[in-house]
Amino acid sequence: MKYLLFLLPALICLSLYSQADERKLNVAILIYEGVYLLDFTGPAEVFSDAYLENETQAFNVYTIAVDTNLIHTQTGLKIIPDYSILDFPKPDILVIPGGNPRLLKSDSALKNWIINNSKESKYTISICTGAFILAEAGLLDSMEATTWHGAVERLKSIYPKVKVVSGVRWTDNGKILTTSGVSAGIDGSLYLVSKILGKGIADKTAKYMDYDYWK
Amino acid sequence: MKYLLFLLPALICLSLYSQADERKLNVAILIYEGVYLLDFTGPAEVFSDAYLENETQAFNVYTIAVDTNLIHTQTGLKIIPDYSILDFPKPDILVIPGGNPRLLKSDSALKNWIINNSKESKYTISICTGAFILAEAGLLDSMEATTWHGAVERLKSIYPKVKVVSGVRWTDNGKILTTSGVSAGIDGSLYLVSKILGKGIADKTAKYMDYDYWK
Repeated sequence: MKYLLFLLPALICLSLYSQADERKLNVAILIYEGVYLLDFTGPAEVFSDAYLENETQAFNVYTIAVDTNLIHTQTGLKIIPDYSILDFPKPDILVIPGGNPRLLKSDSALKNWIINNSKESKYTISICTGAFILAEAGLLDSMEATTWHGAVERLKSIYPKVKVVSGVRWTDNGKILTTSGVSAGIDGSLYLVSKILGKGIADKTAKYMDYDYWK
Repeated sequence: MKYLLFLLPALICLSLYSQADERKLNVAILIYEGVYLLDFTGPAEVFSDAYLENETQAFNVYTIAVDTNLIHTQTGLKIIPDYSILDFPKPDILVIPGGNPRLLKSDSALKNWIINNSKESKYTISICTGAFILAEAGLLDSMEATTWHGAVERLKSIYPKVKVVSGVRWTDNGKILTTSGVSAGIDGSLYLVSKILGKGIADKTAKYMDYDYWK
């Protein structure tokens, strides 16, 4: 009985910690050679800056690539991915930025990885020409999708099963979301934060980032 | 004479190439442990996406840190800096992002580097709490400066010589510019592009990034 009294506070702490930690959703961002910088750093910033009412961080953000070798974004910025597709924390949210619309054309392992992890995740969101990657994986068939304004017609013609829309910042098919180009990843991610945690927390996140444009 | 005829096209090509290259302005982004991700990737994206009328890239964007060891942004993203402050291409534009307002408190070498390179550059622009770094270097004395909304009062009280303004996306003192928080680096950089290359090219850059908010 005496031991139980000593154990009790520890057990309470552990339980509170697990609860706080359970709420943190894993945001996995796929990166690759030539990935567009703002396509994925916009979402990374949004999800990192989102805090719950109790002031704990809502999301755990990390990058995944085919392997953990150095990657250059299209701007030349040098990034070391956090995980490879062979060993990584299970994503709750999968973010697919643009930069190489033909990424899956020669990589069936990555294609299967995206298909499987999108299926198991709660949400998958493509940014910019990341829509081509989801479309190539068959994940946008019969879905409303958007992409960078300069690639809308190409997306329509290559993937006729996709319901391509233009002139919107994002589309929401429930589990699968897409955004228009580059900077729209910020808006789409704020929208996803509002969908998961409510508009109050999304607004607070936008305010934190001085992103006056988010409505 | 025959050799000259062969050499002529090569010389013309070389001369055109040098002219195009001469126009490229060096954009040096200072990064450091804990630097805010969007503070510097927003500007990096803008300057990388700015193209001249002849479709050549207008700027050469790179990162500089105290050394070239791996750096973590505040989101945990792992970056390898392109250059160290001991060996780097001369900046035309110096970008100072936020994340550690006390960065220069214990680093007089970096402080001197910033003072010297700001003096020799055409423009210096701070993003977010990067204003504290410029202020600590004495570069904002008698200047109009802004910063992240949550740090405005602190900037005023620590650096009374700075004319702190709030509620604006950026300030322009000619050579020294500052922006408000995180995402405002995108707007401030677009403004700097418009100042250097004209509003037409800034608008085209914003359009390319699907940044519908830029006016």
